Amino acid sequence: MTAAIHIVTPIFTKGVRSLDDVRPLEKFGLEIRHSLLSTGPASIECEFDEALAVPDTIKKCLEAEAAGADAVVIDCMGDPGLNAVREVLTIPVLGPMQTSMHLAAILGHRMSVITVVDSVVPMIANLAKLYGLNERLASIRVIDLPVLEIEADLQRTQALLAEQSIQAVREDDADVLIFGCTGFLGCADAIISALNAVSINVPVIDPIPVTVLQAAAIHNAGYTHSKKTYPFPRTKAIRGYSVPGFEVAG
Amino acid sequence: MTAAIHIVTPIFTKGVRSLDDVRPLEKFGLEIRHSLLSTGPASIECEFDEALAVPDTIKKCLEAEAAGADAVVIDCMGDPGLNAVREVLTIPVLGPMQTSMHLAAILGHRMSVITVVDSVVPMIANLAKLYGLNERLASIRVIDLPVLEIEADLQRTQALLAEQSIQAVREDDADVLIFGCTGFLGCADAIISALNAVSINVPVIDPIPVTVLQAAAIHNAGYTHSKKTYPFPRTKAIRGYSVPGFEVAG
Amino acid sequence: MTAAIHIVTPIFTKGVRSLDDVRPLEKFGLEIRHSLLSTGPASIECEFDEALAVPDTIKKCLEAEAAGADAVVIDCMGDPGLNAVREVLTIPVLGPMQTSMHLAAILGHRMSVITVVDSVVPMIANLAKLYGLNERLASIRVIDLPVLEIEADLQRTQALLAEQSIQAVREDDADVLIFGCTGFLGCADAIISALNAVSINVPVIDPIPVTVLQAAAIHNAGYTHSKKTYPFPRTKAIRGYSVPGFEVAG
Amino acid sequence: MTAAIHIVTPIFTKGVRSLDDVRPLEKFGLEIRHSLLSTGPASIECEFDEALAVPDTIKKCLEAEAAGADAVVIDCMGDPGLNAVREVLTIPVLGPMQTSMHLAAILGHRMSVITVVDSVVPMIANLAKLYGLNERLASIRVIDLPVLEIEADLQRTQALLAEQSIQAVREDDADVLIFGCTGFLGCADAIISALNAVSINVPVIDPIPVTVLQAAAIHNAGYTHSKKTYPFPRTKAIRGYSVPGFEVAG
Amino acid sequence: MTAAIHIVTPIFTKGVRSLDDVRPLEKFGLEIRHSLLSTGPASIECEFDEALAVPDTIKKCLEAEAAGADAVVIDCMGDPGLNAVREVLTIPVLGPMQTSMHLAAILGHRMSVITVVDSVVPMIANLAKLYGLNERLASIRVIDLPVLEIEADLQRTQALLAEQSIQAVREDDADVLIFGCTGFLGCADAIISALNAVSINVPVIDPIPVTVLQAAAIHNAGYTHSKKTYPFPRTKAIRGYSVPGFEVAG
Amino acid sequence: MTAAIHIVTPIFTKGVRSLDDVRPLEKFGLEIRHSLLSTGPASIECEFDEALAVPDTIKKCLEAEAAGADAVVIDCMGDPGLNAVREVLTIPVLGPMQTSMHLAAILGHRMSVITVVDSVVPMIANLAKLYGLNERLASIRVIDLPVLEIEADLQRTQALLAEQSIQAVREDDADVLIFGCTGFLGCADAIISALNAVSINVPVIDPIPVTVLQAAAIHNAGYTHSKKTYPFPRTKAIRGYSVPGFEVAG
Repeated sequence: MTAAIHIVTPIFTKGVRSLDDVRPLEKFGLEIRHSLLSTGPASIECEFDEALAVPDTIKKCLEAEAAGADAVVIDCMGDPGLNAVREVLTIPVLGPMQTSMHLAAILGHRMSVITVVDSVVPMIANLAKLYGLNERLASIRVIDLPVLEIEADLQRTQALLAEQSIQAVREDDADVLIFGCTGFLGCADAIISALNAVSINVPVIDPIPVTVLQAAAIHNAGYTHSKKTYPFPRTKAIRGYSVPGFEVAG
Repeated sequence: MTAAIHIVTPIFTKGVRSLDDVRPLEKFGLEIRHSLLSTGPASIECEFDEALAVPDTIKKCLEAEAAGADAVVIDCMGDPGLNAVREVLTIPVLGPMQTSMHLAAILGHRMSVITVVDSVVPMIANLAKLYGLNERLASIRVIDLPVLEIEADLQRTQALLAEQSIQAVREDDADVLIFGCTGFLGCADAIISALNAVSINVPVIDPIPVTVLQAAAIHNAGYTHSKKTYPFPRTKAIRGYSVPGFEVAG
Repeated sequence: MTAAIHIVTPIFTKGVRSLDDVRPLEKFGLEIRHSLLSTGPASIECEFDEALAVPDTIKKCLEAEAAGADAVVIDCMGDPGLNAVREVLTIPVLGPMQTSMHLAAILGHRMSVITVVDSVVPMIANLAKLYGLNERLASIRVIDLPVLEIEADLQRTQALLAEQSIQAVREDDADVLIFGCTGFLGCADAIISALNAVSINVPVIDPIPVTVLQAAAIHNAGYTHSKKTYPFPRTKAIRGYSVPGFEVAG
Repeated sequence: MTAAIHIVTPIFTKGVRSLDDVRPLEKFGLEIRHSLLSTGPASIECEFDEALAVPDTIKKCLEAEAAGADAVVIDCMGDPGLNAVREVLTIPVLGPMQTSMHLAAILGHRMSVITVVDSVVPMIANLAKLYGLNERLASIRVIDLPVLEIEADLQRTQALLAEQSIQAVREDDADVLIFGCTGFLGCADAIISALNAVSINVPVIDPIPVTVLQAAAIHNAGYTHSKKTYPFPRTKAIRGYSVPGFEVAG
Repeated sequence: MTAAIHIVTPIFTKGVRSLDDVRPLEKFGLEIRHSLLSTGPASIECEFDEALAVPDTIKKCLEAEAAGADAVVIDCMGDPGLNAVREVLTIPVLGPMQTSMHLAAILGHRMSVITVVDSVVPMIANLAKLYGLNERLASIRVIDLPVLEIEADLQRTQALLAEQSIQAVREDDADVLIFGCTGFLGCADAIISALNAVSINVPVIDPIPVTVLQAAAIHNAGYTHSKKTYPFPRTKAIRGYSVPGFEVAG
Repeated sequence: MTAAIHIVTPIFTKGVRSLDDVRPLEKFGLEIRHSLLSTGPASIECEFDEALAVPDTIKKCLEAEAAGADAVVIDCMGDPGLNAVREVLTIPVLGPMQTSMHLAAILGHRMSVITVVDSVVPMIANLAKLYGLNERLASIRVIDLPVLEIEADLQRTQALLAEQSIQAVREDDADVLIFGCTGFLGCADAIISALNAVSINVPVIDPIPVTVLQAAAIHNAGYTHSKKTYPFPRTKAIRGYSVPGFEVAG
């Protein structure tokens, strides 16, 4: 049993994320597809960045559904546009923060999110509250590194992630760790090794693989989002955006 | 003591809201300015509509600050783009839902929001949760009328509002009522009369006037938003939007 | 990619649940295994029943892991023994209530659980609180039918389920429905038809299939429970139970 | 547009607070009036002090309304008698803690209160809970200085305030600071300078000015408290207090 | 093992409550003492009434301790002055609402409070929140009868109580009932009979007896309130009240 | 007035707890009875241990009721089987954690639990949440000593308890302390002395004595648990357990 999972990375920056980065997830027996944005920000590190990313994220998700995807994953831990996309699509739409937080709540008692910079901390705290899991949130820690510098020195990035991960367990009493940026894709093994080296044994959630698997599971089980929570938008004039299936005001 | 309050209505639809509608607020000794969007939706009734409204809302707010406004009010009860705009502006930015809910929590024990259509109910419930006031929320009731039909038959609109307002007090035990759409501007007196006619005496919050007054009070007291919560966005390439002060990728 | 998922039904009653009932889940490309209890209650409808089911549930789960299962699912919506089993196993252990509630929180705003009898209502309310999702719980409704009578007249069971499901949406404003007893396995299609017939379109979660798929996804993604939350029990004398791997006091 | 705001300081101690201290607020275009108590404590630092302050606070507020005030502000961060006064008055009655906490929730993500002594900490924690904002409360910090010693060495007071303010931001992750005693009136500029000197830029709420401005805004917008939450007391015999408008038992 | 429990009824109205009413509690092997107020309201039905009751309640409790009581019970479901009295006394001080709500949380899942009039509903809701038990509160129901009319027609009072009690169980799903006014002392048997007559079997908490027994249990176990939460008031001038042990300003 | 309180210690280990340890509680005018388990674990330090303790705990509690006990206390801070036992008994059944947490909430603002080992921390956190008191929980601290080693060097045990108790007050701001293991019975005086020596004056709850007194108070006041929350189990076949009054399947 398989599924075609379309990953939409809500930035336009080619070097940061391409199909090659996520195609290894096909090892799970899935077909992986990928889009970058045409318009939007180079990276997402605040609500302003998110706001400019969402309109084209919606468009790319609509195109993914039209192209036959079985489910869509938005590739950013701010879950930008998650509910808006759910309104216009009928296939399952997953955000990696929502999916990772619910998984973490299943795997252990308290979770910590290790993320990039201070400016995303209130956004993540708000998402935890909206998802109803803020009582399980042990801490949000930052490595103080902008998204576009993650790959510049991956060894240093992993060292910073390991340092904050260890502190999250020791000082904040976290039982499960979540990478707070999808740009950390592939770093989990290094962090687990660093944790093991100091005798810590907790799950480290690398969000995109688990979100892709969860999207496939939801599709295979025959579910999609509640159209009572996410009804199709009322038809109305729109100016300045050409969204497939929506009329455009002059 | 006065202040120039700039109201940005995050839709492009001229007939629905113009400076003439809000200029009466100048009776409070304020200068009132107004913008509509150039790009975005005709009305806001779901998260998809909001998503398309936010980019130009940000731009119009930046222009308002550049033109010398003392504070900005976003004229929609979904508070679209509120946090994103706070990141890029230094003057106070107020959303009418956040302002009205906090005022309602001061005026009485439990509040109900009377709004337009079912599709905005989860959005309002989420805002109440984010603002920390969901334990005070008695109910969210709808009159089942799209935004653009509010003014078609204002008498009918007010009758529907009155009916739901009375039920919110009697059945949901609300102590304070909030209009859940800024399109109901000016309807408070009619609703208060209808409530008084059945011996109900509770505040009915018409969001825009109180939000404008609160914006002036915050400005006059010398406050603005915390730059620790809403830091200026990191400079980065943006494609497809020309936001004053932000570089644009080719 | 496949996985061997072992379902432990925590009652001893053969006619109610056998491998034949759950083997259809092999359509998802999984290997399904199954155990009933040797000691315990005929059905689970209160905490007393649960208490007598848990010791042998632990034993059957330990045997399932020893026999090479990739993950274990406990086949009861009270999630009996879930945390205890996690302490003694290293493979993922899933409970259908925890899994279904987290899935429901992803699929829509508010969930209702439709279950068998009044005596399980406080248990389910407590689980929602422990899982951190009680603010999302719209209602717990009962069809007032003991577990062992579910299959006696399946048509009547489905009619009762449909009646309460419709009321959960209309009166309690539920966006997603969860079957509150795994004995309702296979009834989802009938309930969805009944809901559609009155123009209601919300997901109806049949817990065992989604829990089995989620167990496979967690296994395939390489995760298991946090050993910081669920550490192996300290070795000590036990009297009256022979648990594989634990010493027995005389 | 103006308003007459009457400030009732719920202690009898003349040197600590007089009309001269609050008359500068008339710069906001308001008329400021002021009362001290005739009976009550010299300062308020615990619930016992509050209890003895409330009866005469009620009387002074009734007198303020009778003298034509447009709104009343109770000048103590314990908000003593706030709800009782609302029951007997028809004009708006504001407490500086409630007003400041709601303003802080609008200005940033998490707030800290910097107050005088340990004995008021549980009172403030209880108010945050009652006002529904305890999830936004980062910390309550004390400078360990009794109210009546604040003005003895104002420089030292401000140094202590600055020290705790810096720690509230750095150690407790506060985004907005609130003075937890109205006796700190006028200290905000010094604290902001001290924060800026260590590169911290967060709002520092000096409660009385913002509460006075908020009282004027509520009056000007035409609102007062819900008489459903704060109904007029049932007429009954009272012994030992002469409250204007209430009968006195022999 | 015995204890001297002093009950302070925080009103001055002799006919309503005297030592004769509470002396039957001596059947529990306790010595029961009793005081009425010298100054204060005739009954307590709102926060204004409470405010005027608290100063003399403090004085009567101080006198009770000086006279050798082992513990004090404040005889009103608003728990007026509870924390203030704890500050000035060293013996245990119990409030019947706090005690009853914690007992109800031990006896069953959800509690309802059946009380006198609408004006006390927000007060009770606030107490439930402060005591941390609002998630267990099924409802607050009123019989719409002022305190001083409870005894005028006791049969009618009990009929009203029975009616609301039955509805609390049937409509609000309450598992335990609490009398929301200590004036209902002695009515529990009649209500239990009325509940049994319609096949309802839930505990009905008559607050004063259980609070007196709990006060004795706390005294006998050697506990009293935390002086970290309720420290002795700082010595300061007080005007207009002569509180034993506190200096009085001229 | 007296009562026969039966204490069931849910382990089989004779040296750890016998009637001699709890008979001193007869000084409160009570008759104390005691049982150990016949089958179960040597000590309880995780949910696995609890699971194996509960079936015989139920049996011993049923026997206690049959033998004429007035109330039952389960002698473990995990409150194992508390709700299950309440279902099958009609006399009051008390758990020391539930009773101690509710008492602590009455005695002061925030509580800390000082317990044995890390593995019980999530269990205690879950109980605090279920009992609705997690917002009052300042911390759960461990002395890192297995249950069966508590008495090996009682002086060292008390030193460790004192150390964590002092830190709970100083670092976590606890106002009341609770022993998180009933094996610490009798250590309160030593800990209070150690606290007093560093000028800390907070209640230290030794759970068994207060739970026994509370059980007697509930019995004497004529209450027992709500049969709506804890209904008698439906009659059904049980295999492998002989529970008095329940039929056994072959």
